[in-house]
Amino acid sequence: MILTVTLNTALDLTYRVPALRPYASHRVTEVIERPGGKGLNVARVLAALGHPVTATGLAGGATGRTVRQLLAGTSGLTDALVEVSGPTRRTVAVVDAAGGDTTQLNEPGPHIGPAEWEEFTARYEELLRTARAVALCGSLPPGVPVGAYARLVRTARAAGVPVLLDTSGEPLRRGLAARPDLLKPNADELAELTGSHDPDQAVREVRRRGGRTVVASLGADGLLAATPEGRWRAAPPTRVHGNPTGAGDSAVAGLLSGLVEDAPWPERLTRAVALSAATVLAPGAGEYDAAAYADLRRQVKVTEADG
Amino acid sequence: MILTVTLNTALDLTYRVPALRPYASHRVTEVIERPGGKGLNVARVLAALGHPVTATGLAGGATGRTVRQLLAGTSGLTDALVEVSGPTRRTVAVVDAAGGDTTQLNEPGPHIGPAEWEEFTARYEELLRTARAVALCGSLPPGVPVGAYARLVRTARAAGVPVLLDTSGEPLRRGLAARPDLLKPNADELAELTGSHDPDQAVREVRRRGGRTVVASLGADGLLAATPEGRWRAAPPTRVHGNPTGAGDSAVAGLLSGLVEDAPWPERLTRAVALSAATVLAPGAGEYDAAAYADLRRQVKVTEADG
Repeated sequence: MILTVTLNTALDLTYRVPALRPYASHRVTEVIERPGGKGLNVARVLAALGHPVTATGLAGGATGRTVRQLLAGTSGLTDALVEVSGPTRRTVAVVDAAGGDTTQLNEPGPHIGPAEWEEFTARYEELLRTARAVALCGSLPPGVPVGAYARLVRTARAAGVPVLLDTSGEPLRRGLAARPDLLKPNADELAELTGSHDPDQAVREVRRRGGRTVVASLGADGLLAATPEGRWRAAPPTRVHGNPTGAGDSAVAGLLSGLVEDAPWPERLTRAVALSAATVLAPGAGEYDAAAYADLRRQVKVTEADG
Repeated sequence: MILTVTLNTALDLTYRVPALRPYASHRVTEVIERPGGKGLNVARVLAALGHPVTATGLAGGATGRTVRQLLAGTSGLTDALVEVSGPTRRTVAVVDAAGGDTTQLNEPGPHIGPAEWEEFTARYEELLRTARAVALCGSLPPGVPVGAYARLVRTARAAGVPVLLDTSGEPLRRGLAARPDLLKPNADELAELTGSHDPDQAVREVRRRGGRTVVASLGADGLLAATPEGRWRAAPPTRVHGNPTGAGDSAVAGLLSGLVEDAPWPERLTRAVALSAATVLAPGAGEYDAAAYADLRRQVKVTEADG
């Protein structure tokens, strides 16, 4: 199975309103509830692709129970979340019919105690024994040490399990030093990490600092991959319009799907780009349009890059 | 006991953000969860005043369970909510540290089926047997007949229990025709109901149409009461600044508290105005500042009004 780690799970709420006006009162016309947090998005896409997947991480409270009830409906996904005492955060995406754009409100997440963190790391080690790959995704809730991902990367490497890291800020900086197999930064994360706004230069710098393979997601420009086997660019046939939430998580799922099948890099990148674009085209965050995915897979352009 | 009815209960969330900007992403710095819906606010204030109170209405789903867990901590309050299949709505109040003002997002509430509505009315009739007064408060969730409050007013009158109605729009219009003992419209509701923006004239019109006693809340100007015993105005000593959410519900609690003690009207209005102002001064919606209440009670000015 593929293991995904979501330390800061979320109950994602999408609210549709006619128009968002600060300091006014709004009737929400439509409410959608989904399991959230980047690792859970990755897990749901992997399950939809037919890969057995186990989702671990931390969840608690009434919101955590709701997240787990929603996950229970996903065939092929095993819930191995560790229960914590604090309640799982909510995120609210307010979709404005007037602007068509989204205003995001993210709760900080529960405080995690040291005993809870140790319980999680023990569960993680046990789950690694049967994992073919592991993805560490998203932000850290309060109380989890900032070096958490560095520790989890080292544990995975010691267990011989390929490890992908998709996070930002200081947890990314520290995690990188532990030499994960695969990093998937976006353009902002690359710039924050290296100080460079040139993706080629920034990717080289990330590899120099410990990232064996770096797949940078450059929004509508697709992916730039720098691997020990070569460098590639992969892009969708045309710019797609829609809700970009979860597009990066779908790209991670595509990369992992190719990794466990030992597919060649151009195929892995094709899946990642097509899934990402098919996610932008789907109405809800963290879901993809299966028909669009089938179409897009035939149209992604992968070219070898210099460097 | 005093009975309160909240057909559209809510899980009230207060989110503090540095500044709300449409189409941006916000980290919420503080989250407060409270039982919500006007009737539950009234019930909590009555319980805090030392009156035994029973809260009925409709609640369901994970959010409903959270509301009931939060209510369980309120001493003197009996939970007699009827469980429904749809989930209790959330309301989100985004408090902006920059503007100091609040942006409100209100979910619509669950759809109530006919069998659920009949189960509620049976419970309501049973609870009326031991009630000394009843307050019908707030909006109707989808599926509840628009004439619901008219029916509940008639049932209370038939049982000889004094009934207060605090709602708006068509449910208020219909409920008024059933001749509730006490109405507590605010200035907007008065204008919507009568077409008049002159509170004196509007209150006269509401009494003509069936309201035996009308206590209009006029924001910072306090209350205007028109009763069979006379007319009064009651106002706080100075304009208070803060969060007005729940101020009207605290006024309802003050009026009911005086009603069951058979206090004279000036005393009832003093309690209502002081509780309302002490609620504006409290940091959270639906709570009041007890020290401010004790102070303000000595300072409210009640004067006889013409009419």
